[in-house]
Amino acid sequence: MAKRKLNVALIGYSFMGKAHSNAYRQVARYFDLDVEPVMKVICGRTESKVQAMRDKYGWEEYATDYRDVINRPDIDLVDVTVANNQHAAIATAAAEAGKHVLCEKPLAMNVAEAKGMLAAAEKAGIVHAICHNYRKAPAIALAKQLIDEGRIGHVYHFRGVYLQDWILDPSFPIVWRLDKSVAGSGSHGDLAAHLIDAARYLVGEITGVCGMMDTFIKQRPLLADFDDRLGGKASDQMGEVTVDDSSIFMARFAQGGVGTFEASRFCAGRKNYQRFEINGSNGSLAFDLERMNELEFFDRTDPAHAQGFRTITATDGCHPYAGNYWPAAHIIGYEHTFINLLADLLKAIAEGKAATPNWVDGVKNQAVLEAVEKSSAARGWVTPEA
Amino acid sequence: MAKRKLNVALIGYSFMGKAHSNAYRQVARYFDLDVEPVMKVICGRTESKVQAMRDKYGWEEYATDYRDVINRPDIDLVDVTVANNQHAAIATAAAEAGKHVLCEKPLAMNVAEAKGMLAAAEKAGIVHAICHNYRKAPAIALAKQLIDEGRIGHVYHFRGVYLQDWILDPSFPIVWRLDKSVAGSGSHGDLAAHLIDAARYLVGEITGVCGMMDTFIKQRPLLADFDDRLGGKASDQMGEVTVDDSSIFMARFAQGGVGTFEASRFCAGRKNYQRFEINGSNGSLAFDLERMNELEFFDRTDPAHAQGFRTITATDGCHPYAGNYWPAAHIIGYEHTFINLLADLLKAIAEGKAATPNWVDGVKNQAVLEAVEKSSAARGWVTPEA
Amino acid sequence: MAKRKLNVALIGYSFMGKAHSNAYRQVARYFDLDVEPVMKVICGRTESKVQAMRDKYGWEEYATDYRDVINRPDIDLVDVTVANNQHAAIATAAAEAGKHVLCEKPLAMNVAEAKGMLAAAEKAGIVHAICHNYRKAPAIALAKQLIDEGRIGHVYHFRGVYLQDWILDPSFPIVWRLDKSVAGSGSHGDLAAHLIDAARYLVGEITGVCGMMDTFIKQRPLLADFDDRLGGKASDQMGEVTVDDSSIFMARFAQGGVGTFEASRFCAGRKNYQRFEINGSNGSLAFDLERMNELEFFDRTDPAHAQGFRTITATDGCHPYAGNYWPAAHIIGYEHTFINLLADLLKAIAEGKAATPNWVDGVKNQAVLEAVEKSSAARGWVTPEA
Amino acid sequence: MAKRKLNVALIGYSFMGKAHSNAYRQVARYFDLDVEPVMKVICGRTESKVQAMRDKYGWEEYATDYRDVINRPDIDLVDVTVANNQHAAIATAAAEAGKHVLCEKPLAMNVAEAKGMLAAAEKAGIVHAICHNYRKAPAIALAKQLIDEGRIGHVYHFRGVYLQDWILDPSFPIVWRLDKSVAGSGSHGDLAAHLIDAARYLVGEITGVCGMMDTFIKQRPLLADFDDRLGGKASDQMGEVTVDDSSIFMARFAQGGVGTFEASRFCAGRKNYQRFEINGSNGSLAFDLERMNELEFFDRTDPAHAQGFRTITATDGCHPYAGNYWPAAHIIGYEHTFINLLADLLKAIAEGKAATPNWVDGVKNQAVLEAVEKSSAARGWVTPEA
Repeated sequence: MAKRKLNVALIGYSFMGKAHSNAYRQVARYFDLDVEPVMKVICGRTESKVQAMRDKYGWEEYATDYRDVINRPDIDLVDVTVANNQHAAIATAAAEAGKHVLCEKPLAMNVAEAKGMLAAAEKAGIVHAICHNYRKAPAIALAKQLIDEGRIGHVYHFRGVYLQDWILDPSFPIVWRLDKSVAGSGSHGDLAAHLIDAARYLVGEITGVCGMMDTFIKQRPLLADFDDRLGGKASDQMGEVTVDDSSIFMARFAQGGVGTFEASRFCAGRKNYQRFEINGSNGSLAFDLERMNELEFFDRTDPAHAQGFRTITATDGCHPYAGNYWPAAHIIGYEHTFINLLADLLKAIAEGKAATPNWVDGVKNQAVLEAVEKSSAARGWVTPEA
Repeated sequence: MAKRKLNVALIGYSFMGKAHSNAYRQVARYFDLDVEPVMKVICGRTESKVQAMRDKYGWEEYATDYRDVINRPDIDLVDVTVANNQHAAIATAAAEAGKHVLCEKPLAMNVAEAKGMLAAAEKAGIVHAICHNYRKAPAIALAKQLIDEGRIGHVYHFRGVYLQDWILDPSFPIVWRLDKSVAGSGSHGDLAAHLIDAARYLVGEITGVCGMMDTFIKQRPLLADFDDRLGGKASDQMGEVTVDDSSIFMARFAQGGVGTFEASRFCAGRKNYQRFEINGSNGSLAFDLERMNELEFFDRTDPAHAQGFRTITATDGCHPYAGNYWPAAHIIGYEHTFINLLADLLKAIAEGKAATPNWVDGVKNQAVLEAVEKSSAARGWVTPEA
Repeated sequence: MAKRKLNVALIGYSFMGKAHSNAYRQVARYFDLDVEPVMKVICGRTESKVQAMRDKYGWEEYATDYRDVINRPDIDLVDVTVANNQHAAIATAAAEAGKHVLCEKPLAMNVAEAKGMLAAAEKAGIVHAICHNYRKAPAIALAKQLIDEGRIGHVYHFRGVYLQDWILDPSFPIVWRLDKSVAGSGSHGDLAAHLIDAARYLVGEITGVCGMMDTFIKQRPLLADFDDRLGGKASDQMGEVTVDDSSIFMARFAQGGVGTFEASRFCAGRKNYQRFEINGSNGSLAFDLERMNELEFFDRTDPAHAQGFRTITATDGCHPYAGNYWPAAHIIGYEHTFINLLADLLKAIAEGKAATPNWVDGVKNQAVLEAVEKSSAARGWVTPEA
Repeated sequence: MAKRKLNVALIGYSFMGKAHSNAYRQVARYFDLDVEPVMKVICGRTESKVQAMRDKYGWEEYATDYRDVINRPDIDLVDVTVANNQHAAIATAAAEAGKHVLCEKPLAMNVAEAKGMLAAAEKAGIVHAICHNYRKAPAIALAKQLIDEGRIGHVYHFRGVYLQDWILDPSFPIVWRLDKSVAGSGSHGDLAAHLIDAARYLVGEITGVCGMMDTFIKQRPLLADFDDRLGGKASDQMGEVTVDDSSIFMARFAQGGVGTFEASRFCAGRKNYQRFEINGSNGSLAFDLERMNELEFFDRTDPAHAQGFRTITATDGCHPYAGNYWPAAHIIGYEHTFINLLADLLKAIAEGKAATPNWVDGVKNQAVLEAVEKSSAARGWVTPEA
């Protein structure tokens, strides 16, 4: 009954900081765990903001330098939710300090960085995890279960899109996600990375890619105040957009199937439209993040006259994670994917086992991302090297 | 190879006349039948119009008096598609003349009339049919098959709506369908009659009803020219709307289940929205006429974690009627329900058997319609008497 | 910055206790409020259970007698989530003790009880609220906004169903919700009450009802252990089901429109299917609780060739409540309706204003519920008397 | 009133022969045209079959050698629906004989052949047309209208799939569509050709492609009887599948947008799933052939809180072609796309104008098909050369 406490330090307080804070606050309310997270300290560079967020999200303390935090002996788990170009430095340092580390995706700016992080983590023997939270949506976990049960047979096709529309307006300014030096890439690392994780989770490793990356609007207003780069006002000066607006690629899987991937922020009306479909020899599965409680399933073994795509609302006690929340079809939301991921991570830490997904996944994901970038430049096929 | 010819006289040339003409033209192209219909004569009161329709629809001759037509010795089948207040006279006379008769729905203006028609038909020994064409949509016929196979078990609920919006505008004039002396009723006989047929076909007889019928817009413009009553221009004089705009009722079925029925022409955006759902002890079925190739089916015997409403596209060779048309998911449309009904009718005539549905169905349907009207007036439950 | 604290006592710890606890825990993390709830004490009759729930949900203390709790001077708000037959006693006592009270729905066992509660609350001058949480779903609040903006015009039709299937199996035992002495009614008070609230909120007061209530399975196993009546094992003894399995009624609204209502727990595949549609002179709206982030809207003022039901994903900053959570189409779930309701209630308390919805709504809702029960018995129309 | 007659010769009597026959039979019943087609002669190599089809489809005569037919002075229009490897010979000869020619898609086996056909047609001055019938679905014609009205603005993305599943079973034999010498290609020419036409029609010319074509099952049973190659029984001998099972490619449009294309016959549950989505600066459009009466439209100029994808049921009088058929939401089917195409073709012939789409479209389509094949072999980008 007296549970083991796990002190957490959260690095970063914006969008992901909010989602992760919520997960720490909620996880023990829904899951019976052997370790209980303690929201010890939140860390960010701007004191006034991080202090406000400490109060808002319910952390005990705040700090402004991550180095102070990761070296505190009372911290057990460091959670890295800052911009992509800082992942490697912070996560590596935390691992070297012997902390378990949860890192946001994409793991790093490139494969070399990602491999360095993994090497440090393995050397330190810590539990490392990457926040591909959608794996933990009950409907996607159910897709994995149905595939493992053989219900769709051998997979021929994976077909995924992740479409948004928040930068359609040419007057939208260059926030950090449009700055290659900070974000690494645009739709590619932000959105396609999720598709790649889904494909790797549900189908298997990718052995070749051929892609095209485009920037439709090449000049945009700079920010009025650079420190507001998370989402500030436009200035009247223009700058260069250095990331892709759209990332499209074809792929081959090790198991013989083929895939298509498309990520874009230029799709009017698509707000958070991660949709994928998997076609196998015995059936098909489809998922749409905007209706994330549902999984579509076609079963070729149904009686011929009664075959059809069925919509499974993955909210029953018999579905992954769902029994921890509400009765059937009392749906859960976006934030619960983080809670589920955290529950799995805490269980891994409690049991001294590897987390899933972890930095091995991060490295392999990064390898596909990087191969697509090379492919787009070379206008041909490239083999991901992880 | 030399097929028996069946000479057809069509009475009425407007909307239903067009749909029925198409069915006669097409049925032998899609179905292998022992009798082949010959489009002999089309009959209507206004010579210029019926002549034009003869050419348009492809009939051999035209006539302006139905009495001339039904007494022609070369006519085998009389098809009655005129306004409801003429059904009884024409269909009865045709039956008495020994012709097979297909009559549009609702069969008559009231139960007494309907019973008279049935008595005449039975006395004459002719094949009588009523044009509840939606029974012949492959998806509805499939629903019947699945029910007969026991796949949804004992039915607890039938829930049907038939919603349109074509008279929402108060300036829409009083066409024949808004004139009780011609149409008998409004949404009730036009739309609810279809729901009643679906319920009787799929669930069983109705033993009690309690309803409310409403006229939301009680005054409308009269027609500029009464002869244009099928759809003419509004005059600047107002008249009384004598039919219901909306018809709603609750019902009990002989087998123990309960039902709800709603028909209205005041539902913005619903153009031809006949939707019903049937819930049984083992599963559920749902149908939407605007997506009439599809049937939704929930099967409680599926594995618990893989249950969900599935959308069956009833267009495969294994589905009723569908094999006569196109490959899977090359959908058919509204007009094909008439072709299917006609194919069944021609088969019944060829084999000397009763058609389905026929005037027994027409009488029972009329009894429910009439009971609802009485119930609405009496503000209580009424037993349909057929 | 130093916010006013509001000490809360929660009475009841099962399903609704879990949902309300979550709301208290979360509300200040998402909303900027002038008062902050303190999760002071949770109260339930079985000590071992209430103690466990204190730990699970994060309350400071627990208690086993509600009288002790409501008389504590440090308690500001009493939240009543116990079975329906205890609402009146507890909520009235709390009001008389000068506490603000949030009470679960339906407010009481009958209108007389409900009126007594309201009188006590008004006499005491406390803030009273009823937990019709679905009003606070962003999509439903948006429906209200669109109606208030005149976008669908004069309402002709309300059409609501709330369908579940959790007691389809005849071996499911008689839990409290199937016991009239505890629950008051079955689907009726549990599910139809929500539809009535939606109809009153979005259309207006109901002036007449005509209904039918049915119990399809009249005998079921008793519980093995009565104390487990929230959801225990079946014994091998049978008992009488004293509540309705299905509740259906027609209604008239004061503003001239008509409505249909249906609630049932016998609809295979419908897990939490609260769906309603509203048709007005200018447009229509539809909502489905299983896709609670979405609102369907048909606008007759769109260009004729571009009209159609549109699916609004009510998750943008411009939608009610949604800006407090996540970016567009990062959906929220069932539990957030309680958080939104609580935010509104806390705001009302802070400002000394009436909460919405409150016990006036509770009384009026109860009046409709009771009128339907009378109507079902009398087999005719009844006027709700509130 | 006395309309000009146009004598038609149909070459080929299988699937497309059936669809085209229906169109000739029906077109004058739904459209007021200045020329009326006469179903003069149907031509096929197997006498017993073509004779049966003459009777079945309602042609006046039959013939077994196309040379006899195209040289008949009384024939005005030759319609070529035979296998792809015969298009060029027959259509060219017919054009040279001065007949108007409608040819099935893909126009030819390769670009050189297609260009030869076009040259012959232009030299002869005949009206040439290609049967890209889906352009004539009301919903797709409406998409074109909305695009031309500027409602979605500048197009950034075209995303199309055409998925079927009829050869998933490895025991399905090598019919003509799986034989490169007859069909030219597999999914590519059969399905992707339709997507290419939609993209060209709605977005514009394609200037570069990069694709991958796969054959998942490389050996299949040969046919028991080669003459049954349209769909006969499997023998116990195996043969080589010489066409693609799946065709995937990325594309660039002349106007600056990007596209993805995927065609496959290995997608379980997808029967005739041609679905595409177009994203522009002001809105988006989406179409699904299995629900071909519907068009989805997102309009960024709607009020912010009321934006959403709307489903337009393109069946009203204000929608293209729809007014010729039935009242709103009384849907049409697959076969009506051919009727609409024929109506347009007859109008072009009557007016002495070019048909749309025609062999110029056929050549350009073929150029894209061929470029993708080259690209798949070369594993890089190729420019279509038309």
